[in-house]
Amino acid sequence: MVDIAIMGHGVVGSGVAEVVLKNADLIEARAKNGVNIKYILDLREFPGLSYSEKFTKDFNVILNDPEVRVVAEVMGGLHPAYEFTKALLEAGKSVVTSNKELVAEKGSELLKIAEEKNVNYLFEASVGGGIPVLRPIVQCLAANDIFEVQGILNGTTNYIMTQMVTKGVSFEEALAEAQRLGYAEKDPTADIEGHDACRKICILAALAFGKHVNPNIIHTEGITKITSADTQYADFAGCVIKLIGRAKRTEDGKCFVTVYPAMVSRKHQLAQVDDVFNAVLVRGDAVGDVMFYGRGAGKLPTASAVVADIVDCVKHLDARKYLSWEHVEDDFLTDYREATVKMCVRVKANECRESVKAEAEKLFGEILVLGRNGEPQDEIAFITPYAAEKSLLSQLEKLPGTVISTLRILD
Amino acid sequence: MVDIAIMGHGVVGSGVAEVVLKNADLIEARAKNGVNIKYILDLREFPGLSYSEKFTKDFNVILNDPEVRVVAEVMGGLHPAYEFTKALLEAGKSVVTSNKELVAEKGSELLKIAEEKNVNYLFEASVGGGIPVLRPIVQCLAANDIFEVQGILNGTTNYIMTQMVTKGVSFEEALAEAQRLGYAEKDPTADIEGHDACRKICILAALAFGKHVNPNIIHTEGITKITSADTQYADFAGCVIKLIGRAKRTEDGKCFVTVYPAMVSRKHQLAQVDDVFNAVLVRGDAVGDVMFYGRGAGKLPTASAVVADIVDCVKHLDARKYLSWEHVEDDFLTDYREATVKMCVRVKANECRESVKAEAEKLFGEILVLGRNGEPQDEIAFITPYAAEKSLLSQLEKLPGTVISTLRILD
Repeated sequence: MVDIAIMGHGVVGSGVAEVVLKNADLIEARAKNGVNIKYILDLREFPGLSYSEKFTKDFNVILNDPEVRVVAEVMGGLHPAYEFTKALLEAGKSVVTSNKELVAEKGSELLKIAEEKNVNYLFEASVGGGIPVLRPIVQCLAANDIFEVQGILNGTTNYIMTQMVTKGVSFEEALAEAQRLGYAEKDPTADIEGHDACRKICILAALAFGKHVNPNIIHTEGITKITSADTQYADFAGCVIKLIGRAKRTEDGKCFVTVYPAMVSRKHQLAQVDDVFNAVLVRGDAVGDVMFYGRGAGKLPTASAVVADIVDCVKHLDARKYLSWEHVEDDFLTDYREATVKMCVRVKANECRESVKAEAEKLFGEILVLGRNGEPQDEIAFITPYAAEKSLLSQLEKLPGTVISTLRILD
Repeated sequence: MVDIAIMGHGVVGSGVAEVVLKNADLIEARAKNGVNIKYILDLREFPGLSYSEKFTKDFNVILNDPEVRVVAEVMGGLHPAYEFTKALLEAGKSVVTSNKELVAEKGSELLKIAEEKNVNYLFEASVGGGIPVLRPIVQCLAANDIFEVQGILNGTTNYIMTQMVTKGVSFEEALAEAQRLGYAEKDPTADIEGHDACRKICILAALAFGKHVNPNIIHTEGITKITSADTQYADFAGCVIKLIGRAKRTEDGKCFVTVYPAMVSRKHQLAQVDDVFNAVLVRGDAVGDVMFYGRGAGKLPTASAVVADIVDCVKHLDARKYLSWEHVEDDFLTDYREATVKMCVRVKANECRESVKAEAEKLFGEILVLGRNGEPQDEIAFITPYAAEKSLLSQLEKLPGTVISTLRILD
């Protein structure tokens, strides 16, 4: 029997306790060892639970108990999760987590400590909730040169975009519905502004390319500016709009990592991923495209991944797992605006649509003009040919009109 | 540097050599050790390759070389692959394979020998080609009680069904096209009769449920009887037809494992999987539905999985991996005909459609009548309500007509 502790008894933490208790026999068979929850750290009181006696408010009780070999950090946030995790790893305990913010910011440092102490720091739950993603990338695709990862990494925004596309509702209406259903928080900023997706694509990029990616310098656009007009033009072009996290290696060996809403062809595998579901598409030189799909959030799906990591730690109490990435001082990221893209551009003409169209054709060559119901007389939307984003944007300034919105088309 | 051998230099074997040589640096970094192909076993001659000097026709050269620690068996077929694998494991060498026939038939025996000898027998490539499936199920879903696995497990039949559904061609035309493109073999029996999918669902069932499933006793139907009329009725019902391997636990703790073409709602995640792509949907009590998608066959995708297993063996030369399942003498499989299904039934009426419809409504209650272009006057197709398959089939005998075809609807 191995003693573990859970830090945080919120949505995920209570799910971890539930899964460990419910599937105890299965877990014992698979871990080749029983798993005993010895402590749960939370400042709140939880009377009346079958395991109420396990609660403690004192982190040092866990830190100083040599019998506790594995700790699940499911508190979220940078502090004190960072200090706690560091202290636990330094004390020779393995830590598993769903805390994407901490992993994205401090992953390389914490992995290095884990390596030095010959313990594990695992975080399958930090990306894609319960969907197996990180381990498959690192282990099952180990023979591949992975050159791109694309993902729908945030269930809240995907729910909102699905509602906007399928029901034609506005962003505000879809957000309100998501909040009513508990899919969006009262303060939805981290989701709708893309910060949550940003942390996840940084973790994926670090594992795929082997180098730390600082989430604070990643170009991140949320979905708050998407309108029904955008989804209608997308539909005309055979596309839906999705918030996409993307990490891609360029030909010179550098990478760009971005988060932005993009038009996705209905034929693209990610276009089929609706509602709160997440998916990660990985491109490798041998395997081609593979995709992982499932519930990217929620109590039990996320707990499923946390507990799988606990099982892995319990099976390998004295063995190091595979995960690590370099902390590079020099920036291996390149300017995403150098990347070649097609863009959907929506313009309010100064005079008439035709003059904008003529000028756009002069600037870009062949363009694809889109339409929508109730399109104003002075509006035109079109798709450009491929070009470096930077040059596309500077060309657009020459149009005889005002650019209302631009949306990149996902390859 | 760890010496390995490759047995078989066909499509997959040559792909394994190519990936090992091409991504040598990547593999060395990930395996924490270089991988050196010392021998390739094949009875044929391959002059003019950069590695022609590595070929041998003598299995004993590999078996008796103590420096060879890991062997990739990519010969296919039961014999001599079985004898070779057994001898290698008994000699203390790890074996990795793409040989689904051997794993499905002899997996429990070979895993037991591997366990006794403290070496590994890994077979990620045996299901889903390059798609990470087996390891994610065993490791990442370790906290789950997995109660169902559904999969599109054969690229050849999925290509044929996709052509029939999207282009309206006949089975024979689609098969001929698949053969022309190299997606189907000259003798396509193992694919189109479902045997290949059967081996794969047996491996998935064994890993999900922990018990050996004998492929020779699994109810297996191929796609040779599917007609354009079937795909048209399916389309009317908002469905496509896919060859589905399915393993499901019943309430009494037994399982049924089946392979048959089924009508799949376009809203079902597997309906979107087209052409030669494969996908495996896994249902767990904590994680909900997760799906793995990618190329289920082909030289480099399959090699990708074989080489990942080689990397895993090289990293764990003296450690056992997770895989195993019980060889159970008593049959834990239950009769699939006891399972509750909805069926699409196509009937040639003795007298008129209306009399069949009236009798069907008397027998089943509410039915959903389907239509298609050019439907004969005396034909009727309808979908039954849920009932045990056995009882549905015996009820159908009472209809005033001849049942032309039945297709189950996938849940």
